[in-house]
Amino acid sequence: MEKYIKPFVDVTENVFAEFIGAKLEVGNPYFSKAEAISEWDISAVIGLTGEANGAVVVSMRSALAEKLTEKLTGKPHTSIDGEVVDAVGEIVNIIAGNAKKGLEEAFRLIISLPTIIQGQNHQIKWPSEQTRVICIPFTIYGSEVFTLSVAIEAARNR
Amino acid sequence: MEKYIKPFVDVTENVFAEFIGAKLEVGNPYFSKAEAISEWDISAVIGLTGEANGAVVVSMRSALAEKLTEKLTGKPHTSIDGEVVDAVGEIVNIIAGNAKKGLEEAFRLIISLPTIIQGQNHQIKWPSEQTRVICIPFTIYGSEVFTLSVAIEAARNR
Repeated sequence: MEKYIKPFVDVTENVFAEFIGAKLEVGNPYFSKAEAISEWDISAVIGLTGEANGAVVVSMRSALAEKLTEKLTGKPHTSIDGEVVDAVGEIVNIIAGNAKKGLEEAFRLIISLPTIIQGQNHQIKWPSEQTRVICIPFTIYGSEVFTLSVAIEAARNR
Repeated sequence: MEKYIKPFVDVTENVFAEFIGAKLEVGNPYFSKAEAISEWDISAVIGLTGEANGAVVVSMRSALAEKLTEKLTGKPHTSIDGEVVDAVGEIVNIIAGNAKKGLEEAFRLIISLPTIIQGQNHQIKWPSEQTRVICIPFTIYGSEVFTLSVAIEAARNR
């Protein structure tokens, strides 16, 4: 596993343990290409700048997003309403914010505001010339999956 | 129009004039809420950090994305292939990069790597507590539309 990926895996496990009360199984990270194959219902994107440039994306199906929001708010959710949008945005925000701390010895990062995408069967893609993107699949509740995608390249003057 | 929005409008008009050879009609900017109503086929998101935090998103339908890519590459495109993904990512990259220069007197910004979302009828949303987002609708070729969404808030220690 690439050195800079480990902090993202660690904080994701910790965030889900602390806020959702769920243990994650970590799948094998894989390099993503412009030809994405996974389809999702909701994704939250956050940009990274500072001593490296990049982006972090959390993607999942609506059923899982609704279940996680129920854990966070204490109320059932049956569609991707405003609270589900907020919850998924907050999850990527906390993961990126905590990973930033874990990476401080390697490089100082700054995170942008999150943007949330909702739409059945959307895909997350990256420019083909971009520094490679690593996708980390996680399994929760035995069979539900989500991915954390991390793109990082050395900072240019952007 | 909010002061910081004008540089985004100006550079978008210039970028389309220079790279696409098309004149844009600028619609009335509106404030976006978590309940987005427009549906898109492809969006490109870029994060902003520095003396302000935010995000810039360009969203359009596939027909327009394919037409713009044809203008840029000289080859026809009939689906959202890798070149279309690259083209839309590059459009948001150039707009954010040029707007950054126009905003330097107000605040210094740094832009992240772009992430591209593909999926029929997806929506772009924002956390409800977030500083307001301004969407600027543009019309091109007489009837086709795309939007530029800009979220900016004063920088916290992110």
